Amino acid sequence: MYDLAEELFPIPRSITGNGVRQTLSIIKRELPLLKIREIDSGTKVFDWDVPLEWNCNDAYIITPEGKKITHFLKNNLHLVGYSVPVNRTISLNELNDHLYSLPSKENAIPYVTSYYKKNWGFCITHKERELLKDGQYKVVIDSTLEKGSLTYGEIIIPSDSGTEKEVFLSTYICHPSMANNEISGPVVTISLVKFILKNRDRRYKYRIIFIPETIGSIAYLSMNYSEMKRNIVAGFNITCVGDSRSYSYIPTISGDTLSDNALKHTLKHNVDNYITYSYMDRGSDERQYNSPGIDIPVACFCRSKYGEYPEYHTSLDNLSLLSPDSLYESYILLKKTILCIEDDIVLKSLILCEPNLGKRGLYSNISQVNSRRPISKNILDIISYCNGDRTLLEVANIIDISMSEIKKIATIMISNKLVEVCNNNVNDLY
Amino acid sequence: MYDLAEELFPIPRSITGNGVRQTLSIIKRELPLLKIREIDSGTKVFDWDVPLEWNCNDAYIITPEGKKITHFLKNNLHLVGYSVPVNRTISLNELNDHLYSLPSKENAIPYVTSYYKKNWGFCITHKERELLKDGQYKVVIDSTLEKGSLTYGEIIIPSDSGTEKEVFLSTYICHPSMANNEISGPVVTISLVKFILKNRDRRYKYRIIFIPETIGSIAYLSMNYSEMKRNIVAGFNITCVGDSRSYSYIPTISGDTLSDNALKHTLKHNVDNYITYSYMDRGSDERQYNSPGIDIPVACFCRSKYGEYPEYHTSLDNLSLLSPDSLYESYILLKKTILCIEDDIVLKSLILCEPNLGKRGLYSNISQVNSRRPISKNILDIISYCNGDRTLLEVANIIDISMSEIKKIATIMISNKLVEVCNNNVNDLY
Amino acid sequence: MYDLAEELFPIPRSITGNGVRQTLSIIKRELPLLKIREIDSGTKVFDWDVPLEWNCNDAYIITPEGKKITHFLKNNLHLVGYSVPVNRTISLNELNDHLYSLPSKENAIPYVTSYYKKNWGFCITHKERELLKDGQYKVVIDSTLEKGSLTYGEIIIPSDSGTEKEVFLSTYICHPSMANNEISGPVVTISLVKFILKNRDRRYKYRIIFIPETIGSIAYLSMNYSEMKRNIVAGFNITCVGDSRSYSYIPTISGDTLSDNALKHTLKHNVDNYITYSYMDRGSDERQYNSPGIDIPVACFCRSKYGEYPEYHTSLDNLSLLSPDSLYESYILLKKTILCIEDDIVLKSLILCEPNLGKRGLYSNISQVNSRRPISKNILDIISYCNGDRTLLEVANIIDISMSEIKKIATIMISNKLVEVCNNNVNDLY
Repeated sequence: MYDLAEELFPIPRSITGNGVRQTLSIIKRELPLLKIREIDSGTKVFDWDVPLEWNCNDAYIITPEGKKITHFLKNNLHLVGYSVPVNRTISLNELNDHLYSLPSKENAIPYVTSYYKKNWGFCITHKERELLKDGQYKVVIDSTLEKGSLTYGEIIIPSDSGTEKEVFLSTYICHPSMANNEISGPVVTISLVKFILKNRDRRYKYRIIFIPETIGSIAYLSMNYSEMKRNIVAGFNITCVGDSRSYSYIPTISGDTLSDNALKHTLKHNVDNYITYSYMDRGSDERQYNSPGIDIPVACFCRSKYGEYPEYHTSLDNLSLLSPDSLYESYILLKKTILCIEDDIVLKSLILCEPNLGKRGLYSNISQVNSRRPISKNILDIISYCNGDRTLLEVANIIDISMSEIKKIATIMISNKLVEVCNNNVNDLY
Repeated sequence: MYDLAEELFPIPRSITGNGVRQTLSIIKRELPLLKIREIDSGTKVFDWDVPLEWNCNDAYIITPEGKKITHFLKNNLHLVGYSVPVNRTISLNELNDHLYSLPSKENAIPYVTSYYKKNWGFCITHKERELLKDGQYKVVIDSTLEKGSLTYGEIIIPSDSGTEKEVFLSTYICHPSMANNEISGPVVTISLVKFILKNRDRRYKYRIIFIPETIGSIAYLSMNYSEMKRNIVAGFNITCVGDSRSYSYIPTISGDTLSDNALKHTLKHNVDNYITYSYMDRGSDERQYNSPGIDIPVACFCRSKYGEYPEYHTSLDNLSLLSPDSLYESYILLKKTILCIEDDIVLKSLILCEPNLGKRGLYSNISQVNSRRPISKNILDIISYCNGDRTLLEVANIIDISMSEIKKIATIMISNKLVEVCNNNVNDLY
Repeated sequence: MYDLAEELFPIPRSITGNGVRQTLSIIKRELPLLKIREIDSGTKVFDWDVPLEWNCNDAYIITPEGKKITHFLKNNLHLVGYSVPVNRTISLNELNDHLYSLPSKENAIPYVTSYYKKNWGFCITHKERELLKDGQYKVVIDSTLEKGSLTYGEIIIPSDSGTEKEVFLSTYICHPSMANNEISGPVVTISLVKFILKNRDRRYKYRIIFIPETIGSIAYLSMNYSEMKRNIVAGFNITCVGDSRSYSYIPTISGDTLSDNALKHTLKHNVDNYITYSYMDRGSDERQYNSPGIDIPVACFCRSKYGEYPEYHTSLDNLSLLSPDSLYESYILLKKTILCIEDDIVLKSLILCEPNLGKRGLYSNISQVNSRRPISKNILDIISYCNGDRTLLEVANIIDISMSEIKKIATIMISNKLVEVCNNNVNDLY
């Protein structure tokens, strides 16, 4: 995953343009099932219009001393996203109205965009900005802003059970060279999709999208929301999953959906601690999915959440923030969350009163203080709650064991005909 | 308000009689809409009978030394309420059976009544009582207790929306010269009614009553409860609202009605702290309104609650306990509570997914770390919860802003066609 | 009760056999209503078969030195329950595979059984075991394991109200000479049944069973569960009720049934503190009653709970753990729990607004600070919640008084026609 992150990192992405296409073509190399789709500029998507397509060949400033600074080809954060073409010589005074820097982080190039108002600007470290002297500056932005399209990628993986019910994953591909808040999302999602494809007996259908943030999810929903609303049983926005400082969970608006329960259960049983944010802290595409009338239960999983770490939206959010281990841990956690959903069946006891575990070889026939073996204790605890109504995740939470443990025991219970799987919206795999 | 309190304070009120009439005539001078009504003595009102009317011209004791003490015309607390006429000379021993004083508060004249058992008595400071010497005491009570009526005042203010749904206010006018636990209630209620009358576009009808406590609310309910039960959406008993030591809230029996929610919200956003009592601590007319079969959701608002401050039901509860500021603060708090109810509409988002605030001039088009302006953040937070089901008060509580703030933002949202007002029991004003 | 415990203690009980019959015949002497019933060995009861009947005349080991040890007739814990007949001379090495002792409690004979696997063994204090020397040991077990029956006792006490709704009590009679975890249960239950029989105007029918644990409750349920499920409103498993160290409550699976509420209320108002276990801590017959498909709400009451005290399942759980006082306290607590259920009627106010207690002589007509008498305050509090929906236990919990107190006040309220009893599933006694 880290190698792929390195490959994707330098591409000059924005919410439209060739950077997005180049990113998606690399993702398609990894996931040949990916469909790359285009939506024309100007297309009405709910309250928004798909913007003009923006591309940039080069951009820089020549100082009065003849030095080339803020060079887009060196670091694509130097240019304000969606800057219109410029080729002028202006005073430092005028230039200053178009420069963005962060006095509090003097070595950071900030990330600035102006998607919906025609504008231009350069982002510069505050340290470099302070050295600029009075004089005439040549400003060159060799960009185009014209009718084109918004590009996104979509993968649909059918269920093996025949159900149309689906699990939904969303990640974004619209930020230029930033690592935790951009590249980590797609690379972990790619690994996750590879796992889903390998996983035999998928109970659910899967829908995975790689989109520009906000306008991309709005555009995608405008075309797909009624089908999604009907079918999605759980969904996750995957972003900022590459650093190692924390684990974060942003709930759905109601906070008690399968998305929430599966993610919280997996976090509880797999990491030492994690931060539970409020839905009030949402900020990425979960905003769209949970909005009134859309009502798709999408929770958000992050390591250090967007907006909450010092390097956020600056050039300091670079590859040094990521590590192969952190990416892998995030992948494992999401993989377990998905298994938690896949395995969340409903069991019903086939036996009235306690089963005779002894005659099935599941229990010692000699009883003595403290001699109960965990397996029989677990079976008796689990079957006590298998009333054909509670899901396995609910039972696991009551008796406080992980889904991976309860799954193993449930498999033994099913094969010993202690319980049966209830039909539960989808065809069952057992 | 304080001047009016001074004017009303000395009037010798009881649950019936000319003191009540005199009090109501002053209230009618302030609120010409007031209807003064009489209910005949002996009228059956639920489990009770309207008592005989009681009036007193004068009452006093002449000591063996010829000194006139416990003079009703000097302080009407000296006479036990509803004392029958007496004109006798008796021993100190016999007199003592009819004297009431508080050893623990030796300078206080206690407030004592005997409405439903024929009796007579005088209330005296314990200090003065201790000086009484053996000998013959002349006792004069020039009172009448005869068929007459119970007097109360009622104001009905129609809604501007055409709805019959109403907000209900109740306060009492049956205590003689006491300040916090009597006069503060009517004077704050008078100001509140003046505000309601000035408030244009009243969504609700208003019913305000000035009654003797207990028998008055029982009598009033016996004539009006089915209509009240059908129409009242929120109600408040207003008593003990004149001192400055605390704010108190006594919930309705269920504790989760609009009355409770509006009062708690207003207290939370407007005062530093307040005491939440239990419904078990009720003691005034909220007892009647919330009783089984009546079921009208009336909460009670006080500063220092009846029964909970040292001067309660004694001559120490005098005008020095009140201040113009405290009365005004109580008025403002109740006014905001009423506005909270008036403004508690239901909004529904008119837009699927997030609205484009930029094209409406409600959002900066340049995005940068920390650049979000509060108004756009608030709009996006509010609209996230406007699902046509939650009321504005519920949304305000979720995003933790006051009703006055959310009202302003909601007005902008409505005029920008981001949300619409849902029909919500009453015609809407927007 | 203690005398009866002494009489029952030495009997060599197991899940079947003459020890059970002897125990039940003593219980029948105390409770002539008891029906003693037999179920044939081999009878299918849900997932189990009724086991062969086991009896033992004598059992012991003769050491190489000729000493008779682990003598069954001296302490019936010495023999592993359901040991097959043996008459052999074996080496210490082979013997050791059949000896059970507790190194951590060197003076305790452990309690061991092997009901469902043919086996034999002796239980011995670890201290004695350590003294055994190499050599040949003569092992004698004069037992029989053959077709016979499982024996249990049942008492059905009809209701006086004509209802079929019932209260259910279960206790077990299958452990040999142990005191808290065996004998305390039946002796307290016997006293409780005597109380129920004396109690006139029983609102409910009662079903009381004396059974071997686990197989007995499973067998009993297999014959009776549909009737029980239909009729039982509350039930208790009574075990380990003889020591004085604590009070324990194990909830039903849902934790909010009448069984739970009545037991918790009674504990709260009658003992200083008690331990609330989780349903996850269940271990006795409540497991069967609450299991899926059976769904009979049986809570469990203990003093020191099985498995949670050091003497549990050893010879140290002897009569010295019991005291007449502890048995009596347990009896009183269960008696009050049953009265709580009997008295848990639904009252409805017959009066709109507050009743006039004065005219009924229930209230002083002179009102003065702090003059309220508790009875009137309690009446007014209770009637405030008597809406024809809440049960008396719910009202008692709201106003925080005990059922015995509220019962007395409710009786006064009913006779004063302040409230009426609502029909509430069963015929009412008032």
